[in-house]
Amino acid sequence: MQKPYPPVYYGDYLQLERLLTSQLPKSEEYGKPAHDEMLFIIVHQAYELWFKQIIHELGSVLEIFSKEKIDEKNLGTCVARLRRITTIQKVLIDQLNILETMTPLDFLDFRDYLIPASGFQSFQFRIVENMLGLSIENRVKFDDKNYYSLVSDEHQKLLIESHNKTSLLRAVDNWLSRIPFMDGNGYHFLNEYMSAVTRMLSNEMEIILNNPSLTDDKRNRQLSEFENTKKKFDALLDKDLHDELVSKGIRKFSYKSSLAALFINLYRDEPILHLPFRFLTYLIDVDENFTSWRYKHALMVQRMIGSKVGTGGSSGHHYLMQTAEKHKVFPDLLEIPTFLIPRSELPELPSEVRSRLAFSYELT
Amino acid sequence: MQKPYPPVYYGDYLQLERLLTSQLPKSEEYGKPAHDEMLFIIVHQAYELWFKQIIHELGSVLEIFSKEKIDEKNLGTCVARLRRITTIQKVLIDQLNILETMTPLDFLDFRDYLIPASGFQSFQFRIVENMLGLSIENRVKFDDKNYYSLVSDEHQKLLIESHNKTSLLRAVDNWLSRIPFMDGNGYHFLNEYMSAVTRMLSNEMEIILNNPSLTDDKRNRQLSEFENTKKKFDALLDKDLHDELVSKGIRKFSYKSSLAALFINLYRDEPILHLPFRFLTYLIDVDENFTSWRYKHALMVQRMIGSKVGTGGSSGHHYLMQTAEKHKVFPDLLEIPTFLIPRSELPELPSEVRSRLAFSYELT
Amino acid sequence: MQKPYPPVYYGDYLQLERLLTSQLPKSEEYGKPAHDEMLFIIVHQAYELWFKQIIHELGSVLEIFSKEKIDEKNLGTCVARLRRITTIQKVLIDQLNILETMTPLDFLDFRDYLIPASGFQSFQFRIVENMLGLSIENRVKFDDKNYYSLVSDEHQKLLIESHNKTSLLRAVDNWLSRIPFMDGNGYHFLNEYMSAVTRMLSNEMEIILNNPSLTDDKRNRQLSEFENTKKKFDALLDKDLHDELVSKGIRKFSYKSSLAALFINLYRDEPILHLPFRFLTYLIDVDENFTSWRYKHALMVQRMIGSKVGTGGSSGHHYLMQTAEKHKVFPDLLEIPTFLIPRSELPELPSEVRSRLAFSYELT
Amino acid sequence: MQKPYPPVYYGDYLQLERLLTSQLPKSEEYGKPAHDEMLFIIVHQAYELWFKQIIHELGSVLEIFSKEKIDEKNLGTCVARLRRITTIQKVLIDQLNILETMTPLDFLDFRDYLIPASGFQSFQFRIVENMLGLSIENRVKFDDKNYYSLVSDEHQKLLIESHNKTSLLRAVDNWLSRIPFMDGNGYHFLNEYMSAVTRMLSNEMEIILNNPSLTDDKRNRQLSEFENTKKKFDALLDKDLHDELVSKGIRKFSYKSSLAALFINLYRDEPILHLPFRFLTYLIDVDENFTSWRYKHALMVQRMIGSKVGTGGSSGHHYLMQTAEKHKVFPDLLEIPTFLIPRSELPELPSEVRSRLAFSYELT
Repeated sequence: MQKPYPPVYYGDYLQLERLLTSQLPKSEEYGKPAHDEMLFIIVHQAYELWFKQIIHELGSVLEIFSKEKIDEKNLGTCVARLRRITTIQKVLIDQLNILETMTPLDFLDFRDYLIPASGFQSFQFRIVENMLGLSIENRVKFDDKNYYSLVSDEHQKLLIESHNKTSLLRAVDNWLSRIPFMDGNGYHFLNEYMSAVTRMLSNEMEIILNNPSLTDDKRNRQLSEFENTKKKFDALLDKDLHDELVSKGIRKFSYKSSLAALFINLYRDEPILHLPFRFLTYLIDVDENFTSWRYKHALMVQRMIGSKVGTGGSSGHHYLMQTAEKHKVFPDLLEIPTFLIPRSELPELPSEVRSRLAFSYELT
Repeated sequence: MQKPYPPVYYGDYLQLERLLTSQLPKSEEYGKPAHDEMLFIIVHQAYELWFKQIIHELGSVLEIFSKEKIDEKNLGTCVARLRRITTIQKVLIDQLNILETMTPLDFLDFRDYLIPASGFQSFQFRIVENMLGLSIENRVKFDDKNYYSLVSDEHQKLLIESHNKTSLLRAVDNWLSRIPFMDGNGYHFLNEYMSAVTRMLSNEMEIILNNPSLTDDKRNRQLSEFENTKKKFDALLDKDLHDELVSKGIRKFSYKSSLAALFINLYRDEPILHLPFRFLTYLIDVDENFTSWRYKHALMVQRMIGSKVGTGGSSGHHYLMQTAEKHKVFPDLLEIPTFLIPRSELPELPSEVRSRLAFSYELT
Repeated sequence: MQKPYPPVYYGDYLQLERLLTSQLPKSEEYGKPAHDEMLFIIVHQAYELWFKQIIHELGSVLEIFSKEKIDEKNLGTCVARLRRITTIQKVLIDQLNILETMTPLDFLDFRDYLIPASGFQSFQFRIVENMLGLSIENRVKFDDKNYYSLVSDEHQKLLIESHNKTSLLRAVDNWLSRIPFMDGNGYHFLNEYMSAVTRMLSNEMEIILNNPSLTDDKRNRQLSEFENTKKKFDALLDKDLHDELVSKGIRKFSYKSSLAALFINLYRDEPILHLPFRFLTYLIDVDENFTSWRYKHALMVQRMIGSKVGTGGSSGHHYLMQTAEKHKVFPDLLEIPTFLIPRSELPELPSEVRSRLAFSYELT
Repeated sequence: MQKPYPPVYYGDYLQLERLLTSQLPKSEEYGKPAHDEMLFIIVHQAYELWFKQIIHELGSVLEIFSKEKIDEKNLGTCVARLRRITTIQKVLIDQLNILETMTPLDFLDFRDYLIPASGFQSFQFRIVENMLGLSIENRVKFDDKNYYSLVSDEHQKLLIESHNKTSLLRAVDNWLSRIPFMDGNGYHFLNEYMSAVTRMLSNEMEIILNNPSLTDDKRNRQLSEFENTKKKFDALLDKDLHDELVSKGIRKFSYKSSLAALFINLYRDEPILHLPFRFLTYLIDVDENFTSWRYKHALMVQRMIGSKVGTGGSSGHHYLMQTAEKHKVFPDLLEIPTFLIPRSELPELPSEVRSRLAFSYELT
């Protein structure tokens, strides 16, 4: 027989004594209490709690994805955990509204006491970025300094450690490169897709050339746009061009993974591709939400300190603005829409492949 | 060759001329323009647009679900459309914040002109309720009147029509009752589950009886709670008891469907059960979001008119408050957690069933 | 000369070492790690951090309002702090969405370890309620127990302390009762208002009696509604009736304060009444947001545990549902709309009063 | 006696027959119904309804602000209406989440039918920008075209009209330039402020020069930052420098208005400055919310079409991204924090000024 567990008290379970005595306003320490410093501390502590949770979720997804073969039972779990991260991110974004209730004048009451502390020193957020797969080369320089140069030795160690582990970007890349279905028994996804694209492009070309309502000027313009589109498809269809983009850091997935991601997006209605499709979509969501958060954060910083330098010694506003654009981890997934073709043009899958992608809930 | 489509102008495509001339404030008509009447009209029009969209989504889900056999390709689509409805519902809820920027005094400037119009006359929202499966018997009476007695003849016809079609509640009930996997080849889900429940309950009983730290008073209390729990399980395990609850309107699913919903919730980690699990979860979300919306709506009405009667001639606040509680369509799904047992107690599926519930993305 | 402050490190300032080691999942302690327990802990810790902040804000407002005379410089500050509380409340509500990403089955993995801990033991939230002015008599009984019977001795002491201090309800009541402008130099707000109400009511009466399009049935109905409205006004205009409602706990403001609140709402466009009007409006917002939070919390609990008893030993769902309705602190403010009269009927203020309520930004 | 108003029917009042028949999907017209086109239409129609409401609110604020002297009774109204706009903007931002439930593949099902329609042709949104005060010179070029070159002749006329009216930017500039209190009776705000700034800066300088813990490298860096700060203050204090920034389009307020805005921000605790302070703050909010909306819109477009050109014939993503940064209307207000000085350094107002800025709710 199982024994009863010892009774638990809410306050002890949540360690409230520690938690609620961990707010130590500097303004009080210096004898000039500033009411809003409490808010400043608590909002940042709430952020750090949520970062810990995100690390917990990412860690569990990474553990599943780092295996040589992923148990399908776990993909649903991973989707649910990424979804949870996006729900947390929405709160992260909304928490900025709370911080914005502090006016610039109120911030000045204690700002000088905090120098040079800065959100840039949040080692947990850097770990989140590392776990996702943000590489050192892709990071925006902060004041010409390496991203871990401003944190304590202990935190630096944690950052380097996290950096050296397999990131979600790499793990997903590996998984995508192993996805079957795309070739075999006379079926070659790439060939089928290429034919469809060629058909579609030559149809478009004909429309442009024969459209009587176009002026010469407009026709030339449309033709040059058409050339651009064609080039993009070429890069997708040509492994060497793709590898060149990878070497420049513009693409991050291997050639094979890119095609697999495209395949999943095109045939996502096939029953067993639904989960992988949702998984890839949540990766985009996570990326996009951090981008939104960074951007809104940048706006908030500007609003709080104008164009002064931040407590950390650099223009927080400018730095955050740049990271919004450049710290995206899954640009390859954002490029997929460029290569989608309308369902009406989509080559049908051979029945053998379709049956491998199907399952049935109903009695047959 | 496909021909180019004729060029489209944004304003025509969206019918902006009609749309933007459809705001006809009564206060202007009567020569006493009240600034906030425009807001009142537009927020209600925005609601009606979204209701139309929800009807569009529900209609497509119902079309898929009304078939005798649901193509699995479509379940992912249904999940995505329910998810879209929940996203729209969040905006419906937030739109109340916009209406709340109108103060009670500003409302009084035009309120008398609107009598007896009332949101209760939104036939589209009643159609949404009918499509979901809210029956006439389960509806809260409004001023002792039938729910369609206050709308125009034309709208009444639409309501009765929608009422007579298969609702989502009924369609889901049918689908669940057809789900296989639960019996066959010597496996009987119900038997396995009953054994696990019995084991769990007798263990709990022993703990209560033998826990030396309990006072007699506390022990008796725990025993009576235990009896309650046991009774609930009995009702689930006994078809007659279940059918009695159905006849009283407390349960709405058939006995077989209830068990299928439980099965899906317990074994949702099996790959092919993931989508049905998400589908059932979104049904709860849709129900819960409308409940939240009705409740917040009730608070808003109270705040706007205090305890006066509404323009429709009844206490809007009180009516809405009651519907929040009573207009839930899927109470059966909300009861499932009562019957879940911890994963550690969950009977393992026989390998034959597991393999039918599995699929693989990876080469084997 | 001021000395430079010693440099501050982000991690030390926020006490991250303590903060991030304060999550001690029971499931790990018992050797059966449940992934989602971390979420459960962190979401509750985030709640407690925000409760601390709300206490900080309420405390500062109370300090200002407890004085015998409130410095007008501070009313703007109080409005800003109440507004901040409403911004925090929105995050409190959204955080429930994060908790809802935990499924009932996942909760079961660690639920038994937590008995009898329960959110009911959050002494900080009880302090918030006490600071606002929720009295013991108005509290919903939890399992027939006093609201502080389940917390530790130490927390009990804090609760009783907070209970014995002046609440915001009482402080606002005092302040409202001191507001001038309403009488003097031949002006009596109540008289003017009574005449306007009488005029309005007799006009309404005439409409009902003489409306040829009304059936007898409808006319009688409207007359009975009219009687109800009249009675409500009588209660406002008659101090004895008001005091009776106070003694029954239905009204909480003194007679004089009720009239002052009504005056502010009716004449809020006068320049110096704008801030008091916003202040009263934010009190309603704070009340309403906690009501929404409690209600959504109740829905979430039901969804997580069905109709089982909560870890705290009672039906959390049912208890929370009741508190949503009954724990409102400022019902008097919610009743004000009942007594508003349209601006077109509003008696004009004598110029002497208007000039006392005015100020000018512009050169005159 | 007032007559009863004729009874109103909800559906007629809201013009539901027109409203709900204004969705004309092209995909249906062409016989290839695409489920998601309805969503696409309705979400854009909801946007246009809200734009109409924002125009209604801005119009009323402009009417008040265009007068030679603003009645103080109306400033509270303006604050409330700007606040309403910010509430609507939050819904505008959240509506993007609804559109994001449409996947790129689903968009492709009807995208070609819409060419060249584009959100860029929303004349109402351009009117909103014009009413706020976005000038032609400050607009990002769209495909090298003038912002009104793509709309119909009729809409073009409306745009030019709106452009030629006084914008909120200009009206606020005028109002600020008239604000009194800042000079007279021997008080000169600018002088007092300059002395305080000088004191503060020389104190900072001394700290840098005498801080023994600084390396030479760090000291030089701090000195160069100090120089930057000093230059910014110089520009504020020197009318010629300010006018130069205005002529370059970097500043938009007159010199006098800039100082008035600074004065209001520094002394916002004085009772009668509270409303002007809130008003200026809401202007920043409105600006920031549109910035956030444009940015999130840009992310959504990228996600929907990748790096293809938009239906309007240009890179919607890139265009929107740029407008986020550059279409801000009140950059001057965002610069104010740069010039704030801590309350501890703030020169006290002479009692004569303070009494003009004060009022009292209490009996004296």
